[in-house]
Amino acid sequence: MEREHISRIYDVELFEIQGKLLEMGAKVEVMINNAMKSLVDRDSELAEQTITFDHEINHLEVEIDQKCLQVLATRQPTARDLRFITLALKIVTDLERIGDQCAAVAKRAQELNQDLPLKPYIDLPRMAHWAATMVKEALDAFVRGDDELALKVCNDDQFVDDLNEQTQRELLTFMMEEPETISRAIKINYISKCIERIADHATNIAEMVIFMVKGKDIRHTHM
Amino acid sequence: MEREHISRIYDVELFEIQGKLLEMGAKVEVMINNAMKSLVDRDSELAEQTITFDHEINHLEVEIDQKCLQVLATRQPTARDLRFITLALKIVTDLERIGDQCAAVAKRAQELNQDLPLKPYIDLPRMAHWAATMVKEALDAFVRGDDELALKVCNDDQFVDDLNEQTQRELLTFMMEEPETISRAIKINYISKCIERIADHATNIAEMVIFMVKGKDIRHTHM
Repeated sequence: MEREHISRIYDVELFEIQGKLLEMGAKVEVMINNAMKSLVDRDSELAEQTITFDHEINHLEVEIDQKCLQVLATRQPTARDLRFITLALKIVTDLERIGDQCAAVAKRAQELNQDLPLKPYIDLPRMAHWAATMVKEALDAFVRGDDELALKVCNDDQFVDDLNEQTQRELLTFMMEEPETISRAIKINYISKCIERIADHATNIAEMVIFMVKGKDIRHTHM
Repeated sequence: MEREHISRIYDVELFEIQGKLLEMGAKVEVMINNAMKSLVDRDSELAEQTITFDHEINHLEVEIDQKCLQVLATRQPTARDLRFITLALKIVTDLERIGDQCAAVAKRAQELNQDLPLKPYIDLPRMAHWAATMVKEALDAFVRGDDELALKVCNDDQFVDDLNEQTQRELLTFMMEEPETISRAIKINYISKCIERIADHATNIAEMVIFMVKGKDIRHTHM
């Protein structure tokens, strides 16, 4: 075992951080799905719940941050453990901002639910499902130290980008042909971009995981 | 002196991190101004330079990250120094993403420069100037440990949000009245949102600075 020299209490602390991060990730995943469901099912109550739920994500961010600082101060980890903790510090920031994006989607869903539906949503739920999977896989990659899975996440980002582009082009056609759809189309466009940003956050996490595992930086080079 | 017990070499290392962060901040500030200038002056060459310049920001991110990890591993800082370094780790991520936003603005500017101007840009340069100042002040607050300045940055964010809303409403009117402006209006809208996100990053930095100074977390509470 690489960590034989480290006390069991310390190991427990690292597991706690890992567990809290996974909890936060799972909650964020639910938020992504619920935000999208509130749009597709025109369920404004679910949208409201999603917006409120964001506070819980924010609290988790503060909690994990403090736990990481505590371990850094009291255990003075080195090498791989140090990279694990500093990465955890960065990952919580991304997860918290994914929560913000979900709340933003839910707010737009509430607005859209008060109007007539513009079109059936086909690409957006696919994008959201894809983005949620990317978040899950990025965290799995982090926990397992699996750089191949992390690389898969980085590559999957292109598909979400493509769907976002496609959605924007489609909405542009709507707006051109029927100016009265513009206000709704802009909101849907905004939602599409939020999901694209969620996928970007997952990609950021995945890139950092590869750095942790390989000890070298692929950020800014793999694209 | 609070840091009397720490070796001079260590102090030099902390100053190096601080210096590199300020260098990165100053470069990002130039990027914000140049991205906006490339739009207002319809200068596609400046836009191209801004896009290329983003690589330099990316390199600085990697460099500062590695420096922070090295200090954490070899000096095992505690208390305030520990918070300083972990905060530096988070701040570089925000600065790097501001660089991405500037490159995105420059790309849209290039596209818009190939078409007829839609309208004179009045609010966008104000927003950009405001956002650049917020970035500068957030970093000043970090370096000086000035929580009052940091709080000012947090409060200034509202003004950028308001200008963004105003821009969006104005563009909506254009699109409603003249559908052939839609494609350009969407690009300008996108730029407006990029600048709003830059201000959000500055706000994130400022919130974390307050946490560093006061040792308590105002994130998710000050709004």
